[in-house]
Amino acid sequence: MLAIGIDLGGTSIKGALVHREKGLIDQLAIDTEAGKGLQHTLDRIALAINMTAERAHGAEIAGVGIGAPGVISFDRKSVSNPPNLTGWTKVHLASEITERTGYPALLENDANLMALGSARYGIGKNYNSFIMLTLGTGVGGGIIFNNELFRGTTGGAAELGHVIIDYNGPESNSVTRGGIEAYLGQRFLSHHAALILKEHPDNDLFKQFDGNFSGLEPLHLSQAAENGNELAKSILAWAGEKLGYAIVNYIHILDIRTVILSGGVARAGNLIIKPARKAALSRLMPPFHPGFNIIYEDLGNEAAMLGAAALAFDGFEN
Amino acid sequence: MLAIGIDLGGTSIKGALVHREKGLIDQLAIDTEAGKGLQHTLDRIALAINMTAERAHGAEIAGVGIGAPGVISFDRKSVSNPPNLTGWTKVHLASEITERTGYPALLENDANLMALGSARYGIGKNYNSFIMLTLGTGVGGGIIFNNELFRGTTGGAAELGHVIIDYNGPESNSVTRGGIEAYLGQRFLSHHAALILKEHPDNDLFKQFDGNFSGLEPLHLSQAAENGNELAKSILAWAGEKLGYAIVNYIHILDIRTVILSGGVARAGNLIIKPARKAALSRLMPPFHPGFNIIYEDLGNEAAMLGAAALAFDGFEN
Repeated sequence: MLAIGIDLGGTSIKGALVHREKGLIDQLAIDTEAGKGLQHTLDRIALAINMTAERAHGAEIAGVGIGAPGVISFDRKSVSNPPNLTGWTKVHLASEITERTGYPALLENDANLMALGSARYGIGKNYNSFIMLTLGTGVGGGIIFNNELFRGTTGGAAELGHVIIDYNGPESNSVTRGGIEAYLGQRFLSHHAALILKEHPDNDLFKQFDGNFSGLEPLHLSQAAENGNELAKSILAWAGEKLGYAIVNYIHILDIRTVILSGGVARAGNLIIKPARKAALSRLMPPFHPGFNIIYEDLGNEAAMLGAAALAFDGFEN
Repeated sequence: MLAIGIDLGGTSIKGALVHREKGLIDQLAIDTEAGKGLQHTLDRIALAINMTAERAHGAEIAGVGIGAPGVISFDRKSVSNPPNLTGWTKVHLASEITERTGYPALLENDANLMALGSARYGIGKNYNSFIMLTLGTGVGGGIIFNNELFRGTTGGAAELGHVIIDYNGPESNSVTRGGIEAYLGQRFLSHHAALILKEHPDNDLFKQFDGNFSGLEPLHLSQAAENGNELAKSILAWAGEKLGYAIVNYIHILDIRTVILSGGVARAGNLIIKPARKAALSRLMPPFHPGFNIIYEDLGNEAAMLGAAALAFDGFEN
């Protein structure tokens, strides 16, 4: 059986054709053309779905799962106020898509779909329950409990990037202060690194950027750290420590002890994971130590599309 | 149908006879005599159960639920390392009790039973899902999700007093720093208040204690605050603010928006709840505001015994 997974973004719409067991079969991307308004964007999503469906060469398609920004309704059929999509307030996206394509559709937010994709097609397959953190521009979260997404009372659970570790801490893209998005979100980590590097004109990274760090990204820190740059290592360790404290909070509340990291910043790997583990173990109550584990998901952005397809299999496969 | 709820403490064993619908019928307490060792304490628990059962005058008893300190096994039959109980390491308490009394038995930790008791017999009846905080000597937590306890992967979920709000914050009775137990736990709040009061010899509370605050308890702060003592008000507001930040963390992770407070410190009521609500709303992401609510459970310690009986009804009632 096949399903279609869609990743709806402000600049591009990605479509994936997914086989229930084999995973990703084919994928494509088209421009969102979000500036042309709601109806046009809906038509573009339908186009991406139909283009993806053509790749199935007539094989049956169970339905469509869509990863969307904004707040998703509990029934997974509507989306409200997605950032970067002009003219969208509350849109009954599932029915709009079914009207245009004939396929049944369900929505979910990207971070939850990353978790679901990992659970069904990635390293998460090895765990019945895990906490997924996507360390990208923002920090997103998803909770898999007993092989299903834990969604809370309205579908909004797992805003893990906005869990406070210092109530006087820095702000990120929300009203919350001192959540790990404010430390590990790409822009925030880069900003923090720039402040430190500016005081170290002898550092190789300072020289590499000629003292102008507007283009600095966490990737540069990882590369420098891997090449032995101690300052870059210490900046990543600083970020990892903060991650560790947030992980303590997730585990003390949920008693789910496997943490899976994905996203660009997570590519720093052990440069972040080791200090995170050390900080977490220093503050985790002893009964929570057995089974505690931080691992890396390397499916990348495909995880979200695979998760979107999994949503369709769960919802529509007979 | 009746069940027996037991509250096992280091100094006393409380027994409650509970009717499925009507709630508490009768209760008693005997000394634990913990110093006389494991076998003797087990006999004392059995005695409390049999004494409670006699009050049923022959009516059928479904079984026994026991609220116990220490780490409870996932199957709710064993307890490990309960503090204040001499000679206990890992004890298969359920079978020890059944051997001695003939009744089937299940265990759970006190904080979870407070939540279950509120859910079945208290203000929690009005909510399918809520977060329960018991503000006593320590700060305990329980999570009710869709009318059941959320227990995580091993039964250890909801250590809500040890969720970090300031990773550099004060220590409490665990390795975690800056959890709300370190601000709102009775001893910690009293200590904080004493430090402040010592600098205010003109304050009525200073005079009341003659500058020696070893006997100061949160109750004295509430009483003074209710009598217009602004310093006492500000100390309780300080504690409430910290509680508010912790609540943000629970809600951002769980998307459960009703918070029920119980325990001695919670009796300060609006002196704590209002600043907690204000702090929480300042940091809660807007989609989580609808339905957000902090309320007070006045069942008191009976909640835990009622919750213990509910455990027995759930587990053993035909």
